[in-house]
Amino acid sequence: MEDRLDPIFRPRSIAVIGASRTQGKIGHTLMKNLIVNEFQGKLFPVNPKADSVWGVKAYPTILDVPDPVDLAIITIPAEIALGAVEQCAAKGVKGLVVITAGFREIGPAGEAREDRLRETCRAHGIALVGPNCMGVINTHPDVRMDATFAPTPPLRGPVSFLSQSGALGVAILEHARNLNLGFSMFASLGNKADVSGNDLLEAWEKDPDTKVVLMYLENFGNPKNFVRIARRATKRKPVVAVKAGRTEAGGRATASHTGSLGGSDIAAEAVFTQTGVLRADSIEELFDAAMAFSKQPLPKGKRVAIVSDAGGPAIMCTDFLIQHGMELATLSPDTVEGMRPHAPPESTLKNPMDLTAAAGEAGYRRAVELVMKDPNVDAVIVIYVPPVPTEEIAVAKAIVEASRGSDKTLLCNFLGRSENSPGFVHLVENNIPSYLFPEDAAKTVSTMHRYKEYLERDEGVFPRFEVDREAARRVLETANTEGRTRLREAEAMELLQAYGFRTAAIRTAKNAEEAARVAREIGYPVVLKAVGPDLMHKTEYGAVALDLRTGPQVREACARMEKGLQKAGVSWDGFVVQEFVKGGRETILGMTRDRVYGPLLAFGLGGIYVEFLKDVAFGLAPLTDADAMRMIRSIRTYPLLEGVRGETPSDLPALSEALQRLSLLVTDFDEIAEVDLNPVAALEKGQGYKVLDARIVL
Amino acid sequence: MEDRLDPIFRPRSIAVIGASRTQGKIGHTLMKNLIVNEFQGKLFPVNPKADSVWGVKAYPTILDVPDPVDLAIITIPAEIALGAVEQCAAKGVKGLVVITAGFREIGPAGEAREDRLRETCRAHGIALVGPNCMGVINTHPDVRMDATFAPTPPLRGPVSFLSQSGALGVAILEHARNLNLGFSMFASLGNKADVSGNDLLEAWEKDPDTKVVLMYLENFGNPKNFVRIARRATKRKPVVAVKAGRTEAGGRATASHTGSLGGSDIAAEAVFTQTGVLRADSIEELFDAAMAFSKQPLPKGKRVAIVSDAGGPAIMCTDFLIQHGMELATLSPDTVEGMRPHAPPESTLKNPMDLTAAAGEAGYRRAVELVMKDPNVDAVIVIYVPPVPTEEIAVAKAIVEASRGSDKTLLCNFLGRSENSPGFVHLVENNIPSYLFPEDAAKTVSTMHRYKEYLERDEGVFPRFEVDREAARRVLETANTEGRTRLREAEAMELLQAYGFRTAAIRTAKNAEEAARVAREIGYPVVLKAVGPDLMHKTEYGAVALDLRTGPQVREACARMEKGLQKAGVSWDGFVVQEFVKGGRETILGMTRDRVYGPLLAFGLGGIYVEFLKDVAFGLAPLTDADAMRMIRSIRTYPLLEGVRGETPSDLPALSEALQRLSLLVTDFDEIAEVDLNPVAALEKGQGYKVLDARIVL
Repeated sequence: MEDRLDPIFRPRSIAVIGASRTQGKIGHTLMKNLIVNEFQGKLFPVNPKADSVWGVKAYPTILDVPDPVDLAIITIPAEIALGAVEQCAAKGVKGLVVITAGFREIGPAGEAREDRLRETCRAHGIALVGPNCMGVINTHPDVRMDATFAPTPPLRGPVSFLSQSGALGVAILEHARNLNLGFSMFASLGNKADVSGNDLLEAWEKDPDTKVVLMYLENFGNPKNFVRIARRATKRKPVVAVKAGRTEAGGRATASHTGSLGGSDIAAEAVFTQTGVLRADSIEELFDAAMAFSKQPLPKGKRVAIVSDAGGPAIMCTDFLIQHGMELATLSPDTVEGMRPHAPPESTLKNPMDLTAAAGEAGYRRAVELVMKDPNVDAVIVIYVPPVPTEEIAVAKAIVEASRGSDKTLLCNFLGRSENSPGFVHLVENNIPSYLFPEDAAKTVSTMHRYKEYLERDEGVFPRFEVDREAARRVLETANTEGRTRLREAEAMELLQAYGFRTAAIRTAKNAEEAARVAREIGYPVVLKAVGPDLMHKTEYGAVALDLRTGPQVREACARMEKGLQKAGVSWDGFVVQEFVKGGRETILGMTRDRVYGPLLAFGLGGIYVEFLKDVAFGLAPLTDADAMRMIRSIRTYPLLEGVRGETPSDLPALSEALQRLSLLVTDFDEIAEVDLNPVAALEKGQGYKVLDARIVL
Repeated sequence: MEDRLDPIFRPRSIAVIGASRTQGKIGHTLMKNLIVNEFQGKLFPVNPKADSVWGVKAYPTILDVPDPVDLAIITIPAEIALGAVEQCAAKGVKGLVVITAGFREIGPAGEAREDRLRETCRAHGIALVGPNCMGVINTHPDVRMDATFAPTPPLRGPVSFLSQSGALGVAILEHARNLNLGFSMFASLGNKADVSGNDLLEAWEKDPDTKVVLMYLENFGNPKNFVRIARRATKRKPVVAVKAGRTEAGGRATASHTGSLGGSDIAAEAVFTQTGVLRADSIEELFDAAMAFSKQPLPKGKRVAIVSDAGGPAIMCTDFLIQHGMELATLSPDTVEGMRPHAPPESTLKNPMDLTAAAGEAGYRRAVELVMKDPNVDAVIVIYVPPVPTEEIAVAKAIVEASRGSDKTLLCNFLGRSENSPGFVHLVENNIPSYLFPEDAAKTVSTMHRYKEYLERDEGVFPRFEVDREAARRVLETANTEGRTRLREAEAMELLQAYGFRTAAIRTAKNAEEAARVAREIGYPVVLKAVGPDLMHKTEYGAVALDLRTGPQVREACARMEKGLQKAGVSWDGFVVQEFVKGGRETILGMTRDRVYGPLLAFGLGGIYVEFLKDVAFGLAPLTDADAMRMIRSIRTYPLLEGVRGETPSDLPALSEALQRLSLLVTDFDEIAEVDLNPVAALEKGQGYKVLDARIVL
């Protein structure tokens, strides 16, 4: 077989180890699901105590099965599962789905068990889904495999769905039936001992039957791989994900649920931004998006027309459209004039078009025809509040017929009707997504549009910089050798210079004389600081002097500091003299290393903005040039950098370059734990920037 | 009758003018609804062409009805409606519901018609609902009136609901049946020619059968009245509202829908904050809240316990709880130990409690019993993902029984099941709200808690200040007489002083000599500014000098300014000399007059915070002292005012007083169109504040 996952998703034969004759057992239901959904290959129940299961001849062990077996599904208790897996390996099985729980999620004993399971599979080249999962599904007509114990099989369709929660996965498959939402493949990943979400995303990216990928995630597995794969996959098909564990408490619950670390949601958010994976805020939004992406074309632009028979819901829909970045289309005169003869007398013919309760089937038919043809319209939302329920199906039919052949996005809301009302059913069966509330339709069309923008946006390139890795290494090694976890100010600047950052010139000096000399070498004006291990908060002891312009001023400042420090009983090692940078906007560039996501870069304006307004943009290293520029543009105070009231804008390309260099530096050296370049003076356009102070922790 | 609205909601006899024998006509359906829902009074169809309608004897005009008529419902066309209304008046009818459309919403001709309708009703003391509405409902057993043409009657229950959109109202009544959500009264208000939302709110505040008020609003009618009534009503029962027209486009759609102005949503938001009316962001949230408030007690605190059989949805629920300000309860040892013997082996017994798919009916029963009794728990969310659908009803029953008698909040989510699944139905029929998704349950319990906080919060008092109204009036009159729409700087300060604001001392001076003299009188240091109509942006011409400390400095600055202005060819009238206030935080107090809501007060930190970060709090005059303090506390930069890193906090009580004085000033003088006190230096605690600059537009 071509693909490592083929034995899992396209097996020609399956052994169900633990297939059971007992009602209520997983091995009972799972066998039934495989049979009633007409698995296209051969089934071999394995059960030492049964002669047959569901009428299919059973075997005591997999080794007794006469034919080759591609996929084995394990439902027997954890205590005896590993033995069975050894037998699978001996049999030459290449795919394994372990439903059984009792592995990593139960603590150390389970962890050891899971390690052994993984090692056995690796040693024999077996692809493993699970353990502790709900199974897998492939609805392809050549396969037709429902290897889950879910109560109802999914419909065939273009959605592939991976779920890190088995129960949630099953609930979603179940609810999806109501929405006529069909699936291509499904996998409940369980503990992800081997096959990961990233593996599936990579497989589904290439799968021609998968048009939309849905994910319920509690973590990204290897976030770096996820970013790499997802960046590419989202350019081919929409990927929509719910990521649980958003809050700290949610993260703790995640950890206790799956036994894996959560990492910060700020970093997760950066993953979404950088990859173009669409984050659904709730399970409901996941459905809403899946319906739209699987049934409708993307909108070509932002302009939405609303056709309604009631003002109120049309206004609510308008509010949500605008709040989510869409626009109301200006209907063309042809649409308005074409509608006029067919519109009830008290209709509003501009957008939102309110046909009033007298609209009827004919009114909707005409209106939908016209707005779908209108060159000023990119997408259409049809709202219908059935004044008489018997009319509902007629209106649904009219909408289906009037929209036939159009390549514009069409979403509906039949308000007050449930998901099994005849109009709703007729719409979704004809690939027109319908929502219970107008706000959901509005949010969903904006999600589609957001994806369209992702498709078109420039992902940029990973920059190549000439850097002096050796010089940087030397700085780090010196600190390391001396047992320091924090670089001295001058060292930090040296490290940054090795990576091509523009730093304010800085020199150390033992005493006043030397300070005056290096000040002259740097060039006036300068900043003078006393340094020493006790001098964390320099301003407290008057240990900083700004804008010194002459040698005497430097010497005098040194003397004053020495006197002050002596008086305060604080020791000092000497001085640093630094170029005094005038003007510029204070910005901050930083990095913290997330224990899960790795280097998390931060950018913001200095001072108050970062601290109290949390006006900071985050990105995960490595950054492309486009990523860096998007980070800069995304802070709320960005207008200040662009220049307000005729000010000259800051040098944005230079700031972007600095961010990319920081990304490179922290990618090259894992031992750098934290970087805080604060402040970085962003100078006028063309003038670059200067790093004025740097705190680097190893 | 006691109440003006009694003829509308508690009529003993109803005439339906336009009652019809023709299927599909409003007068046909409406008569049927009155009959089949067993209206407890007498019905008189009025139709000149019919002898009877639905078997009830009809009369040619209302004047022919032999008995007294309390309520007349008009469904005949607008052209002939007014004639019928005259006859109603002659008949002595005291309540009128005009379903007929074709009034203000269609433009000038309709406006005139509506004016005449209103005048006729006023002249004869008739309470009027509509025109252009869907009718009214009262489910009280003594009344049982469904005077709408909605397809299905609502259930009896504790919710009263007013809708400014008839169609939306009907859709909501319909959907509410699925949720077992019952209504006490319902009114579709239409154009609100007479009876307003405020009237109904006032009536329902007192109605013992109404436990929850729901509103769909497109405007507040008279916002001042709304604030007054709602502030009181929300202390007695929860009021939940959807307010459409949030965005500008939505506002325009509202205007074209109802013919009324929208006003800014910022002001609407201030109304919600000040009144404690809970704003639902969508129609769905309105339902979610209505279910919870009508079926469950309020949570006593923030601590929520989650009981689930699956980790994923429990984590999503946790995330939403925390994001909406709630906390996860720490389960007491009794709960955990009490559960242990009954929990499936792989359960997680801390919160969220994950009983795994093996939970079963017994597991849920025990868990719900225990958490409902746990003293560390204020509210419980039970999540159930049915692994086998047949178990659903058993689990629902167990939850209902286990929770019986508890006074704690309990909400459920049966994931993957629809609103007509047996478990869902059993729960809602037993007053346990159930939601399709765990996130909705989480959001809703937080809404309930928010209401609990509203109930407890201090609304404060309207302050009484000694102010010099006469002095203020003189300032305004002078400007008015001289045809100026903008006060001079010194005038503005005078006006403020008359209202007890603390302003920086300010004096005008014709020339350098006089400037030096008044500077001495004010006391050094001072600020000097050149003033004149062309000097809007003073800094551009160097026309501001700060921190002048001596007479010679003042004279020199005057000379320099004169020279600069002459050179620039800008004319000036003279100078102002102002006390130079050192230190303090720059804040801004402002007012704009919303064309709908009236004086909208603003507070924020100065400069950048207001302009780019939109970090501004808004409030509607009049403000109570508590309102003012809440405004100040609600800005994101509030920590700066409290003092960071050991700084002394700003004088918050003084700032609050300034806001209240501003509220009083703009309430007293309608002619003040705009106030911009910018900057106001907020000084250290106990030091007050100083208004440094004031722009006041008439």
